[in-house]
Amino acid sequence: MPLSEKDLIRRIRRLAAGGSAVVTGIGDDAAVLRIPPRHEVLVTTDFSIEKVHFRREWHRPEVVGWRCLTRGLSDIAAMGGEPHAAFLSLALGEDIPQKWVEAFLKGLLKLAKKHNVPLAGGDTAQSAGGIQADMVVVGSVPRGKAVLRSGAKPGDGIYVTGQLGASAMALDRLREGLPLGAERSRHFHPEPRVEVGRWLREKGIPTAMIDISDGLSTDLEHICEESHVGAEIEIDAIPRARVGRGKGKFVGLEYALHGGDEYELVFTSSRPVPSRVKGVPITRFGHTKVSPGMRTVDATGKITALEAGGWEHFKSGG
Amino acid sequence: MPLSEKDLIRRIRRLAAGGSAVVTGIGDDAAVLRIPPRHEVLVTTDFSIEKVHFRREWHRPEVVGWRCLTRGLSDIAAMGGEPHAAFLSLALGEDIPQKWVEAFLKGLLKLAKKHNVPLAGGDTAQSAGGIQADMVVVGSVPRGKAVLRSGAKPGDGIYVTGQLGASAMALDRLREGLPLGAERSRHFHPEPRVEVGRWLREKGIPTAMIDISDGLSTDLEHICEESHVGAEIEIDAIPRARVGRGKGKFVGLEYALHGGDEYELVFTSSRPVPSRVKGVPITRFGHTKVSPGMRTVDATGKITALEAGGWEHFKSGG
Repeated sequence: MPLSEKDLIRRIRRLAAGGSAVVTGIGDDAAVLRIPPRHEVLVTTDFSIEKVHFRREWHRPEVVGWRCLTRGLSDIAAMGGEPHAAFLSLALGEDIPQKWVEAFLKGLLKLAKKHNVPLAGGDTAQSAGGIQADMVVVGSVPRGKAVLRSGAKPGDGIYVTGQLGASAMALDRLREGLPLGAERSRHFHPEPRVEVGRWLREKGIPTAMIDISDGLSTDLEHICEESHVGAEIEIDAIPRARVGRGKGKFVGLEYALHGGDEYELVFTSSRPVPSRVKGVPITRFGHTKVSPGMRTVDATGKITALEAGGWEHFKSGG
Repeated sequence: MPLSEKDLIRRIRRLAAGGSAVVTGIGDDAAVLRIPPRHEVLVTTDFSIEKVHFRREWHRPEVVGWRCLTRGLSDIAAMGGEPHAAFLSLALGEDIPQKWVEAFLKGLLKLAKKHNVPLAGGDTAQSAGGIQADMVVVGSVPRGKAVLRSGAKPGDGIYVTGQLGASAMALDRLREGLPLGAERSRHFHPEPRVEVGRWLREKGIPTAMIDISDGLSTDLEHICEESHVGAEIEIDAIPRARVGRGKGKFVGLEYALHGGDEYELVFTSSRPVPSRVKGVPITRFGHTKVSPGMRTVDATGKITALEAGGWEHFKSGG
């Protein structure tokens, strides 16, 4: 039996915790948030759509909820900001069981609690079919300190948090009906790098930053375009995730270079960068150039033009 | 031919105007907004879904865009706030023509311009079918001054802006395939009462306020429940809209009492209230009571219990 709109709002209201930033949460015409003085407000919205961003046969509802919120928190992390509140607009087809919704909210709120981000409002509606969830995250950053995509200068080092490629590889295996190994948790429960992003911003380290939602090549290209620089990548320096069972092996380069849904941070810097922040490894894998475009360099010194591979979600896979 | 995600983002970016509150708009991981000092942030989200909130055969795309934004601006108005920026998450089925999207954005941006609210970001995605638009509006209000639903005291007068009933009546006529008269503009281009709401708040007039999205009876009940008061309504005092052709006639009571999508403001006050604010008439039509529940009183003094009628959008109509 599907939840009525009223029941769903009641359910969300009961589950949603108050937070220090939320003066008035769910249950009025708008939420009222208190942002620290001399801070600017960050707003990000991410639409997660059944059969486009997730599939019910591959992704348990807890996983869908977790991943929906990850996208928003990761955007706040990429600005060097602090998240304050989340808002969920949820449209459900008549066939979606109440159990699914409860588990979805459970997954979402588990991640929300971990980052001390209350669910402060949203909207519910009946969909014409399937599940559509729009997640809004509101955060803040000290005035003038948001880390944009546009601040990279030629000669900056290019860095990335964590290891790449596991999430896209997991998706391919789901598509093929194969069992998952170490890549499971990176795909199902990606960790938005909120603490790392904030730490880097506080230390004044990044000149530009972005999170990897569409793939390293695509997202690095965004920095290049917005900053009017080029990029040279040492192909062997890209940190690849270990995947498969037991000790595992390194994931294929294509996954690390073009795979999406990673939620690691890519940033540029002209300063010394520690090799580990808040327990997360940070790897330098290239540098920016005056000449536009992206290039890879291999161990032999061979230079190859790099095209943004992009991440087509489930469109290409079927 | 449908717009690609990238094209759509480019298109929105080109159309979107900057605004004084928007430091960084579309094109980074999150938008950066500057809120006036000693203000709190207001956030509201409203999901508009094809076949639930609108129908392409009844509502031109400009009208859908206008109405999507009206819902959010009206929520900010009901808090006595000032809107600063709008965010659009738009999911489109493959069959939606580019022309539809352009006209939708045109309607949305026309209302946005009128209220000096820039489109500062959002997300686009391919839907599994049809159109889903989630509209987020961010505003602000001086610290501690947001007008909530919970502040009404027994003995307050109950007031409403404008005239009621035309929007729901128009919807019934669309459903029956009948031509529209004076009710047309109230349904297709409702005016969110942003200036009136702000003026009332600045003067300290409302003790509680809400906008009529689900119908007068339903929304007044929200104030009663959140404020722990009852309400007595003089049935003949409810301001009904004139509908039909030429001079028109007053709309039926049921439409005025239960019809949704009005976007007028209902508020309670113990102070003198002017009969017109910013050109919009304001009518007293009842008062709050200690005893819970809602009642109507007719010209003969007969008292009848009033149930919240609610607004079932298109669900009941077919």
